[in-house]
Amino acid sequence: MSELLVNSHNGHLPASQRVPVIARPWLSERATKTLDIVEKFVEEECIPADAVYLRQIGETTQERFSSHPRIIEDLKVKAKKLGLWNMFLPKAHFKEGAGFSNLEYGLMAEYLGKSRVASEATNCAAPDTGNMEVLAKYGNEAQKKRWLAPLLDGKIRSAFLMTEPQVASSDATNIEMRIERDGDSYVLNGSKWWSSGIGDPRCQIYIVLGKTDPNNTDKYRQQSVILVPHDVPGITIHRMLGVFGYDDAPHGHGHVIFKNVRVPAANMVLGEGRGFEIIQGRLGPGRIHHAMRSIGAAEKALEWFLARINDPKKKPFGEMLHKHGIMIERVARSRIEIDAARLAVLNAAIKIDETNAKGALKEIAEVKVLVPEVNLTVIDRAIQAYGGAGVSQETPLAAMYANGRTMRIVDGPDEVHLLQLGKNENKRGPAHKRRIEAQTKKGEDLCRQYGIEPKDPLFLGRSTGEAKSRL
Amino acid sequence: MSELLVNSHNGHLPASQRVPVIARPWLSERATKTLDIVEKFVEEECIPADAVYLRQIGETTQERFSSHPRIIEDLKVKAKKLGLWNMFLPKAHFKEGAGFSNLEYGLMAEYLGKSRVASEATNCAAPDTGNMEVLAKYGNEAQKKRWLAPLLDGKIRSAFLMTEPQVASSDATNIEMRIERDGDSYVLNGSKWWSSGIGDPRCQIYIVLGKTDPNNTDKYRQQSVILVPHDVPGITIHRMLGVFGYDDAPHGHGHVIFKNVRVPAANMVLGEGRGFEIIQGRLGPGRIHHAMRSIGAAEKALEWFLARINDPKKKPFGEMLHKHGIMIERVARSRIEIDAARLAVLNAAIKIDETNAKGALKEIAEVKVLVPEVNLTVIDRAIQAYGGAGVSQETPLAAMYANGRTMRIVDGPDEVHLLQLGKNENKRGPAHKRRIEAQTKKGEDLCRQYGIEPKDPLFLGRSTGEAKSRL
Amino acid sequence: MSELLVNSHNGHLPASQRVPVIARPWLSERATKTLDIVEKFVEEECIPADAVYLRQIGETTQERFSSHPRIIEDLKVKAKKLGLWNMFLPKAHFKEGAGFSNLEYGLMAEYLGKSRVASEATNCAAPDTGNMEVLAKYGNEAQKKRWLAPLLDGKIRSAFLMTEPQVASSDATNIEMRIERDGDSYVLNGSKWWSSGIGDPRCQIYIVLGKTDPNNTDKYRQQSVILVPHDVPGITIHRMLGVFGYDDAPHGHGHVIFKNVRVPAANMVLGEGRGFEIIQGRLGPGRIHHAMRSIGAAEKALEWFLARINDPKKKPFGEMLHKHGIMIERVARSRIEIDAARLAVLNAAIKIDETNAKGALKEIAEVKVLVPEVNLTVIDRAIQAYGGAGVSQETPLAAMYANGRTMRIVDGPDEVHLLQLGKNENKRGPAHKRRIEAQTKKGEDLCRQYGIEPKDPLFLGRSTGEAKSRL
Amino acid sequence: MSELLVNSHNGHLPASQRVPVIARPWLSERATKTLDIVEKFVEEECIPADAVYLRQIGETTQERFSSHPRIIEDLKVKAKKLGLWNMFLPKAHFKEGAGFSNLEYGLMAEYLGKSRVASEATNCAAPDTGNMEVLAKYGNEAQKKRWLAPLLDGKIRSAFLMTEPQVASSDATNIEMRIERDGDSYVLNGSKWWSSGIGDPRCQIYIVLGKTDPNNTDKYRQQSVILVPHDVPGITIHRMLGVFGYDDAPHGHGHVIFKNVRVPAANMVLGEGRGFEIIQGRLGPGRIHHAMRSIGAAEKALEWFLARINDPKKKPFGEMLHKHGIMIERVARSRIEIDAARLAVLNAAIKIDETNAKGALKEIAEVKVLVPEVNLTVIDRAIQAYGGAGVSQETPLAAMYANGRTMRIVDGPDEVHLLQLGKNENKRGPAHKRRIEAQTKKGEDLCRQYGIEPKDPLFLGRSTGEAKSRL
Repeated sequence: MSELLVNSHNGHLPASQRVPVIARPWLSERATKTLDIVEKFVEEECIPADAVYLRQIGETTQERFSSHPRIIEDLKVKAKKLGLWNMFLPKAHFKEGAGFSNLEYGLMAEYLGKSRVASEATNCAAPDTGNMEVLAKYGNEAQKKRWLAPLLDGKIRSAFLMTEPQVASSDATNIEMRIERDGDSYVLNGSKWWSSGIGDPRCQIYIVLGKTDPNNTDKYRQQSVILVPHDVPGITIHRMLGVFGYDDAPHGHGHVIFKNVRVPAANMVLGEGRGFEIIQGRLGPGRIHHAMRSIGAAEKALEWFLARINDPKKKPFGEMLHKHGIMIERVARSRIEIDAARLAVLNAAIKIDETNAKGALKEIAEVKVLVPEVNLTVIDRAIQAYGGAGVSQETPLAAMYANGRTMRIVDGPDEVHLLQLGKNENKRGPAHKRRIEAQTKKGEDLCRQYGIEPKDPLFLGRSTGEAKSRL
Repeated sequence: MSELLVNSHNGHLPASQRVPVIARPWLSERATKTLDIVEKFVEEECIPADAVYLRQIGETTQERFSSHPRIIEDLKVKAKKLGLWNMFLPKAHFKEGAGFSNLEYGLMAEYLGKSRVASEATNCAAPDTGNMEVLAKYGNEAQKKRWLAPLLDGKIRSAFLMTEPQVASSDATNIEMRIERDGDSYVLNGSKWWSSGIGDPRCQIYIVLGKTDPNNTDKYRQQSVILVPHDVPGITIHRMLGVFGYDDAPHGHGHVIFKNVRVPAANMVLGEGRGFEIIQGRLGPGRIHHAMRSIGAAEKALEWFLARINDPKKKPFGEMLHKHGIMIERVARSRIEIDAARLAVLNAAIKIDETNAKGALKEIAEVKVLVPEVNLTVIDRAIQAYGGAGVSQETPLAAMYANGRTMRIVDGPDEVHLLQLGKNENKRGPAHKRRIEAQTKKGEDLCRQYGIEPKDPLFLGRSTGEAKSRL
Repeated sequence: MSELLVNSHNGHLPASQRVPVIARPWLSERATKTLDIVEKFVEEECIPADAVYLRQIGETTQERFSSHPRIIEDLKVKAKKLGLWNMFLPKAHFKEGAGFSNLEYGLMAEYLGKSRVASEATNCAAPDTGNMEVLAKYGNEAQKKRWLAPLLDGKIRSAFLMTEPQVASSDATNIEMRIERDGDSYVLNGSKWWSSGIGDPRCQIYIVLGKTDPNNTDKYRQQSVILVPHDVPGITIHRMLGVFGYDDAPHGHGHVIFKNVRVPAANMVLGEGRGFEIIQGRLGPGRIHHAMRSIGAAEKALEWFLARINDPKKKPFGEMLHKHGIMIERVARSRIEIDAARLAVLNAAIKIDETNAKGALKEIAEVKVLVPEVNLTVIDRAIQAYGGAGVSQETPLAAMYANGRTMRIVDGPDEVHLLQLGKNENKRGPAHKRRIEAQTKKGEDLCRQYGIEPKDPLFLGRSTGEAKSRL
Repeated sequence: MSELLVNSHNGHLPASQRVPVIARPWLSERATKTLDIVEKFVEEECIPADAVYLRQIGETTQERFSSHPRIIEDLKVKAKKLGLWNMFLPKAHFKEGAGFSNLEYGLMAEYLGKSRVASEATNCAAPDTGNMEVLAKYGNEAQKKRWLAPLLDGKIRSAFLMTEPQVASSDATNIEMRIERDGDSYVLNGSKWWSSGIGDPRCQIYIVLGKTDPNNTDKYRQQSVILVPHDVPGITIHRMLGVFGYDDAPHGHGHVIFKNVRVPAANMVLGEGRGFEIIQGRLGPGRIHHAMRSIGAAEKALEWFLARINDPKKKPFGEMLHKHGIMIERVARSRIEIDAARLAVLNAAIKIDETNAKGALKEIAEVKVLVPEVNLTVIDRAIQAYGGAGVSQETPLAAMYANGRTMRIVDGPDEVHLLQLGKNENKRGPAHKRRIEAQTKKGEDLCRQYGIEPKDPLFLGRSTGEAKSRL
C-alpha cells in the first residue's frame, strides 16, 4: 500500500512532521500516529478511488441520484480497519467518537479535503457530522437509538433542512417553514432548499428547522428542530440544485417542498422553541471542518500547480513554466497564504476545544471568511497555470473551485461574518478613543514637565498679516 | 501608573490573556508576567513620551542630528527598574540577555512596536539588537569587552553598514566596499547607504560588510565583516536619506563615504571571508522583531481607526462612521488579517527557537512578505477614515505608513523572499507530478478492477462522420 | 414587442443614448439605429428565448450533442428581418458583411453578450465569425463558394482546431499536428482539443492549424492552415470537455483525434507555411468581440445584482440588501470598473478600424487582460449577493462565471499578453533612463546658474568624527 | 531647447500622436499643437527646474514658508511667451482663458502633472484655478477687478477655505465657520484647515465658506462664500500641516483660526445662502484637473520604473530587473491600468464640455475614485523596484506617493463618491428587477408555446418516499 508515498514522495515528510511547530504541544501521540495513517489512506486509497466513484454514478439525472457507488462501501471497510472512523466527534463532549480533539481532527480533515470520497469513507462527511452532533448532544435516548446509532455506523445518511428559497435565510429568524402541533403529531408546511445530501438514496432522516411559535415576541424562541423521516408522505423533491454545472450526485442539493408532512410529536428535539439554540451549537465545529478541508483543497491545488509548472512538455516560449517569475511568485504567495490560514484554523479549533463554539466566536468567524478566499485564490492560480485543462474535467481544479465557492455562502455568507466581527471589534472603539485621548493629554503634561510647550512640530504661529510684511 | 489602562481599557484584558490560545504552551510564567509589564510600560509611559521625544529633536537638520532627547534616558532608567532590558537576546543562545525565547520576546515586541521610543527605552532597538547578536555570537573577547558591553548597557549605539547605493545590494554578493589588508591594519574604501542609526550622536561603532577577497571563485567567501569606530578619519556622512518626508532624526539613515579608512586588523570579526555567514545569521531574528513590531503597529492603527469611527463629532451624512457598513467591513478584514499574520510570526519565532534561523528559513520568508502588506493595508484604511488628519502630523498614522513601507524593502525586498520561497516550494514539483501520475494510474487500474472502462465522464467516442448522419 | 423595455425600463434610455460620449463621433447614424434594434431584440426576444433553448437540448450526453434547438432557427428568421445579420464583418475589409466598423459592431456585441442565443441568432457567434473572416480574407474562390457562402447564410457551422492537449499551445510554434503532402492530398495526424463548436451536429467544416514543414528553420513558417470537412474518415471525437461542469451543448468543446485524415490538396488555405500569418490575423478582432460581449455580461451581472438588493423579500437583519453599505460599495466599484473597461475596448476597436489588428496590438492586449478580470469580479459580486441562488441554475450567474473564466485562457492566457505588453513597454526603458539622466544633469546645471550647489536637501556633509565632538 | 526630447526620446512620438485614438475627434488643431508645446516645456524646462525650486525654499519652517523661489517667475515668463497660460479656463464658459475645452486642457494637464512647478508656471495651479473659476462665474465686477485680474495675471495667489478640523467636512452641511452680518461688515469666527496654498507669501485672498444662516431649515441654504483678504486682523495660522513628512512649502496646508475677522459686506459672493451652489460648481472641473495630473504622475512613475529595470548596474542575482517576469508583469499591469483610467478621465472631461459638471456627475465620481488608486498602485510598484532609493529623496516617487495619497481624500473621500455613485446606480434596481421578472415570465410562456414545461433542467420531481424504494 505504501508505494505511492514511497515512490513519489521522495524525501517527503509524513503529515505529522509537517504540522506547524506552534501546534505540536496540542497533539497527542495517538493523534500523531493517526494523522499519518489518514494521509496514507487518502493519498493511496481515496484519491485513486475518486476516479472510480465519479464513474459509478451514471449519466441521467434519475440514475445519478439513485446511485450508490460501490467503492464507497469498500473504502468504509478499509477505513474502519485502520481505525479511521468518526474522528470528528470531539472527545471533550462525546464518548461515541474516536476520541480526538477538534484540533486533532482538524489536522486530519485537511487530508480528507483532498479527496472527494475520503470524508464519507471515514464517516466524517457533512452534513452527517453536524447532524450526529445534534443528535448526540440534544437528542433523547429514543431518538439516538433510532437515528444516531445507524448514522454512527455509516448505515444511513442524513440531511439538514434549514435554508429557504424565498427569504434571506442567512438570518435564521427569517425562516418560514411552519411546524404546527396537532394532537400527537406535528404538521410541517413550507419549502427548503440547499438541503444537501438529500439526493442520496441512503439519506433517511431530515433534521428540519421551522417555526412552532412564529408570533413569539422573542424572535429567538420561535424556532424548533424536528426529525423527519425521509419517507413520510407529503415531501417532494421539487428539483436538485446545481453548483456551477455540477450536480454533486448522488449527494446533491435539494429544493424540497413539504405539504402537510406529519411526524410524531416525539420527533421534536429538545423541546419547542429550542431551535435557535440547537443550530447555533451545530454550526461552530462544522465551520472548522469545512475550513480545514478547504486548506487541504488549497494544498492539493498547489500540488497540481507545481506539477504543471514542472511538466517538461509544457514550454511556452521555450521554457518550462517554473522558469517564469510570474509563476514562482504565485507559488510563493500561495504558500504564504495557505500557511497563515491554516494557523488561523488550528487556533480556532483549539479555542473551541478549550472553551466551546461560543467562546470561539471571533476565531471561527475569522476563519469562515479568510479560508475560502485563500482556497479560491490558490485554486484559481492553479487553473490559470493549466489553461484549458484547468477549467475542464481533465483536472479536479474546476470542481474544487465550484465547491470552494460555496464555502463563501454556506453557514452564513462572508458579509454576515464580517459585519458580526466588525461590530464586535467596534465595541472596543470608545475605550480606544478614551485611551488615546488620555495618552495625548499625558503627553502634553509630560511636555510641560520637560519645559516644552506641546505645540505642533510644524507650528507657525504667525498671523497672515505678518506674512505679507515679510514679502 | 495604572490609571491609563484602568480608565480607558474598561473591560480590557491584559496582554497575556490576549495571546492566541495556540501559543500559550510556549510561554513561561515569567514571560507572561513580563508581557503585561511591557504592555503597561508602553501604553502608560512610552506612548505619552513619544510626544516629548518628537519635540526634543529640534528644527534644522544640524540640530536634529545632534540631538539626544532627554526623555529617552529617563525611560531607560524606568525600564531597567521594571526588568525590561535586552529582552531580545534569545535565552537559548546568549547568557547576556533577559532570558526569553524568540517567541516570548516576539510577543513583547508587538507592544514595543506601538511606540516610537519603546524599543530604544528597553535597549531592544534595531540595528543595535542585530549588532549585539553579531558581537555576542561571533566577536572575540576583546571585541565584546570594547563594544558589546556598552551596547548591552545602553551606553552607546551602533550602525550596520551593508547596503550600497550603486549596486543591487539585496544580493549581498554584489557588495563593492573594499577592505584591504595593509600591515596590521585594514583599509576601507567605498560607499554605504541606508546606514540606519548613524545619525545619532551616540552611535560609536559601525559593523561594516565589505570584500576582502573580491576575486575568490566562491562568491560567498569574498566578504568580511569588520568593526569600524565612528571617529576614524576618512568617514564622511555625505547626506541623510529621508523616508517619504521623514528624516527619522536623530537616528537617521546615512549615505556614508569611506575614503582610506584605516582600522586595526584586530577589528576583523571571525576572520576574513566569513562575512556572508555572519550576515546570514544576523538577519533571521531581526526579521521576526520587525514583523512583530509591525503587528503592533497594525493593532495601533486599528485602535486609532476604531477611535475615529466612534467619534461623535464626525458624522458625515448624519451618522457616525461606524454606522457605515463600508467601515465595519474594513475593521473586520483588518482584524482577520492581523490575527492570521500574528500567528504566522509566532510560529516562525518558535521555529527559530526550536531549530535556528536557518531551520526557519521558510517561516521567516513568509512572515517577511506577509506582515508588511497587512500592516500597510490596515494603516491605509485608518488613514482613509481620518481623511486629512490621517496623512498629517495630527495622527501617527502617516509616519507609521512610511516606516511600514520600508519593511517591504529592508533585509531583502519582497521579491527576493518571494522568489526564494517559490523556488524552494517548486523543488517539490517533480515529486508532486510523479505522485499525481501514479494516483491517476492507480485510479485507472481500480476502474478496471470494478469493471469500468476509465474513459472520461463526458466521453462521446463518436466519429464526426456519425454526427452528421444524426442531423 | 416593445412591452418589456417599456414596462420595465421606466425612464430607461435606449442603448444609443448610453454610448459613452467620447465614442459618439465614431458612430454612424445607421449604426446608432441598429444598436437600438439590437438592444430590443436581445432584451425582448433573445433573453426570454434562452430559457427555451436550454430546455430544448436534452439530457444525456448523446442527446445533448445531437440537438438543434428549434428556437434558434426561429430567432434567425426574426434577426434577418430586423437587419441584424453578420454585423461582425468589418466594413473596411469585407463587402459581405452588414457594413459596420469594429467600433460599431463592438457596441452591438455588448448586447449580444447578455444572452446565450443572441450571437448565434444574428450569425455573429464564435468561432464562425473568425472562421468567416479567415475564409473571406485568405480563402480562394472555390473555398469561399463551398464554405463561406453557407456560413454567411447561417446554414452550417464551423470549428477552429488549433489548441493541442499535449503541448503549451498558447505558443503556436509548439503545435504538433502533422500535415503531410501525399500526391493530390494532405494527410493529417494528431490531436486537438478545445475545438469549440465541434459538438454541434450542424458543424461541417474544421479550419485546422498544423505543421507542413516542422523542420523549417524559420519557426513561423512551419505552420499551415487547411480546411477539413467534418465527415472525412479518420476523425474521432475522443470526448467533450466540460467548463466548470457545463458541457455547453450542443456547441461543446471537443477533444478530437485525427488518424490519417486525408483531404484534397486544394483545401490548403493561402499556401503552405502561411499558417502563422493566418491565425495572427484571425485573433485580433475576435478578442474585441469576446471583450465586448464580456462587458455585456458584466452589465447583466450588475443588473441582476441590483435586482437582488432591491428584492423586498430578502431582508437579512431587517433591511433590504441595498441598505447595506458593503453592497452599495460593490455596486459603485462595478460601475467604475465596467465603464473604464468599456472605454478601453471601444478605443481598441477604433484602433483596429483606423489601422488594423497589428496596429492595435497594444490596445487589444490591454483589453484581453483587463476585461475578463472586470467581468469575473462583477459576476462574483453578484453571485455573492444571491448566495445559493447565485451558484445554481436559479440565476444565469454561475454559467456566466464559468464562461467568463475561460476568457482569461482562450486566444492566449493572460500571462502571454502581460509578458508581450510588458516587454514592448520595456523597450522604452533605456530612452526613459537617458532622458531622466539628462533632466537630472540639466537640473544640476540650472542650480549652478542660480548660484546653488546641487547638493541634497538633507545634506549633512560632516565627518562622523565631528559628530562625536558635539555630544 | 529640443535636445532633451531629441536626445532621449529616440523614436519618441510627440504627445499629440499619443492621444488615444478615440479622443482625437475632440481635439482642435490648435490644441494639438499646444499639447506638444506643453510636453516640451514640461520635459525640457519644468522637470529640470524642479531641482532648483526644491533648493530655493530654505531649511527652517519660517524660511520655507517665506520663500518665493525665483525660478518660478522665470518659468512664468517663458510659459507666457509660449502661449501656455491659463489653459484651464474652459472656452465654453469664460472669455478670459486660453480658449481650450476641458478635454483639451485635460490632455495638457497630464504633462503638467509630471513636474512640481509646471502647473504654477502656466498659471494652472490649484487652488487658484478653482478660485478663478468661482470669481469669473460668480463674482461681481468689483470683485473681479480687485482679485480675478491679478490672479489671471499670476501676480498673486489665493486659498480656498472650506474644510474644518472639528467636523466631518466631507459633508459640507456640517461646516461651522460663522459669518455674521454686522452693519456694513461681515464678522467671521471659526477654524479651517487644509487651507492649501495659504503658506505662500504671495497668497493674498481667501475664498471662505461659512454659515450665514445656520438655522435655515433648508440645510443647503445656510452657507455663504465670502472673500477675505489675507491681511485682515484676526487671522492666525495656527500651524502648517504635513503630508506624510512633507510640508509642501511654500504653498503648504494651513490650519487657520479666525477670531472676529471683519470684512466689508461687499465681499459676499453672489449673495447670502448661495454658498452650497458655488462650491458645487467649483469642484467638478477641479477633480478632472487633479485626475489628469495624476495620470501624468502615474506615467512618470512608470517611466522611472522602466528606467530602473533597465539600469545595468542593478543586477540582483545576475540579471537586470527587466529580465525578471515579476517586474514585467507589473509594467504591463501599470500600462493597462493607466490607459483605461486615462480614457475614463477624457470621457468625463468631454461630458463636462458637452453638458456641465452636474451633467457629468457620474463620470466625475468614477474618475475621482479610480484614478488615485491607479496612480498609487503604479507609484508603489516603482518605489518597490527602486528599493531604498524609492522611499527617499533620491527619486521623486515618495513625494509623488504622498501627494497622490491625498487625492483619495481631497474634494470628498473615496467613500463619499462610492456611496453617491452606488446609490444612484441602485435607483435602477427596481426597474431591472421588473424587467428580469418579465423576461422570466416571457421565457416560461415561450416554453409552453414550444410545448415544453418550463421546469428546471435538473428537475427531479420525485417524492422522497419513492427514492427509498429504489435503494
